[in-house]
Amino acid sequence: MTALEQLIEALRRLPGVGQKSAQRMAYHLLQHDRPGADALAHALQQATHSVRHCERCYTFSESPLCPICQDSRRDARLLCVVETPADQAAMERTASYHGYYFVLQGRISPLDGVGTREIGVEPLLARAADGQVEEVILATSFTAEGEATAHVLAEALRVRGLRSTRLARGVPVGSELEYVDLGTIAHALVDRRAT
Amino acid sequence: MTALEQLIEALRRLPGVGQKSAQRMAYHLLQHDRPGADALAHALQQATHSVRHCERCYTFSESPLCPICQDSRRDARLLCVVETPADQAAMERTASYHGYYFVLQGRISPLDGVGTREIGVEPLLARAADGQVEEVILATSFTAEGEATAHVLAEALRVRGLRSTRLARGVPVGSELEYVDLGTIAHALVDRRAT
Ligand SMILES: [Zn+2]
Ligand SMILES: [Zn+2]
Repeated sequence: MTALEQLIEALRRLPGVGQKSAQRMAYHLLQHDRPGADALAHALQQATHSVRHCERCYTFSESPLCPICQDSRRDARLLCVVETPADQAAMERTASYHGYYFVLQGRISPLDGVGTREIGVEPLLARAADGQVEEVILATSFTAEGEATAHVLAEALRVRGLRSTRLARGVPVGSELEYVDLGTIAHALVDRRAT
Repeated sequence: MTALEQLIEALRRLPGVGQKSAQRMAYHLLQHDRPGADALAHALQQATHSVRHCERCYTFSESPLCPICQDSRRDARLLCVVETPADQAAMERTASYHGYYFVLQGRISPLDGVGTREIGVEPLLARAADGQVEEVILATSFTAEGEATAHVLAEALRVRGLRSTRLARGVPVGSELEYVDLGTIAHALVDRRAT
């Protein structure tokens, strides 16, 4: 494989990028934006080197504790559970939530061999049992897998005497939280219901 | 800016990638495909380091002369002029052309300050006057700018006593060559007309 073919191959691994777009990106970088190619290579190395996971909430963080977990002014009685750092970022942008977070490693998906162990249910249960958390807000996606994940989590929490709620169904069914408009998320947060 | 934000910024420079997709790509790489991030960084560095332009036809090449220009079995009487290496690759995939190529640096676009000098008309005229070329096939895009470029090239070639043809109008008007299906390009090549 030539260096050009290898670049196209590597770009194809990006989500949402097919053969045509990968080729177009590679040609664009080499023909019109070599500084952009250098910047991207550098940013990738920087990010894979310095971006780790927060030791408490598992979101992306460049320090052992992320800025939110370090912020003692947040409401320690609330713990919001999301599937991904992207979902957490969407929640933060609504500016209507002031508790802490727990970021799962995705959602339960039996067909892909992803179960409670893989998404990190044990660390979540340990985190929720810190004695300060009074309500766990289950903000997993409103897809079949996200609902199943919320159901499993609610049960596990209930067994341990922990109360959980779910975002209101204001979130359009079948959609991923990350792509929902902020107003809808904010509204669903206010209307959260007991599970 | 954090390393994550810098990565999102760098991904946004790719053609067709907006804020949302850049964020999605960055999160995907960091959460699920760090080897993919490393591979992409490496491929970018390799490509910007080793991919140069062919000294004769100006397409991407890792050697001074590209494999096509090095191939003495091709028909030296034919020279096909395209706007980009991507267009040349599309032409090659039709397997219906056996001459040589000349890759312009884009197409004439007065509004963007891109004229005959910027796209490399002089090197093309020098290449076409090698004494072997009998027909220059103008395969620029069938857009207003591509047509204008073909017109300017046809005139410049005519003045120097060189014959030029244009791909037949089988190519859908308003489309970029790179995205045309191969059968249409092959057909348009057979039907090429004098300019
Ligand atoms: Zn944290
Ligand atoms: Zn060449």
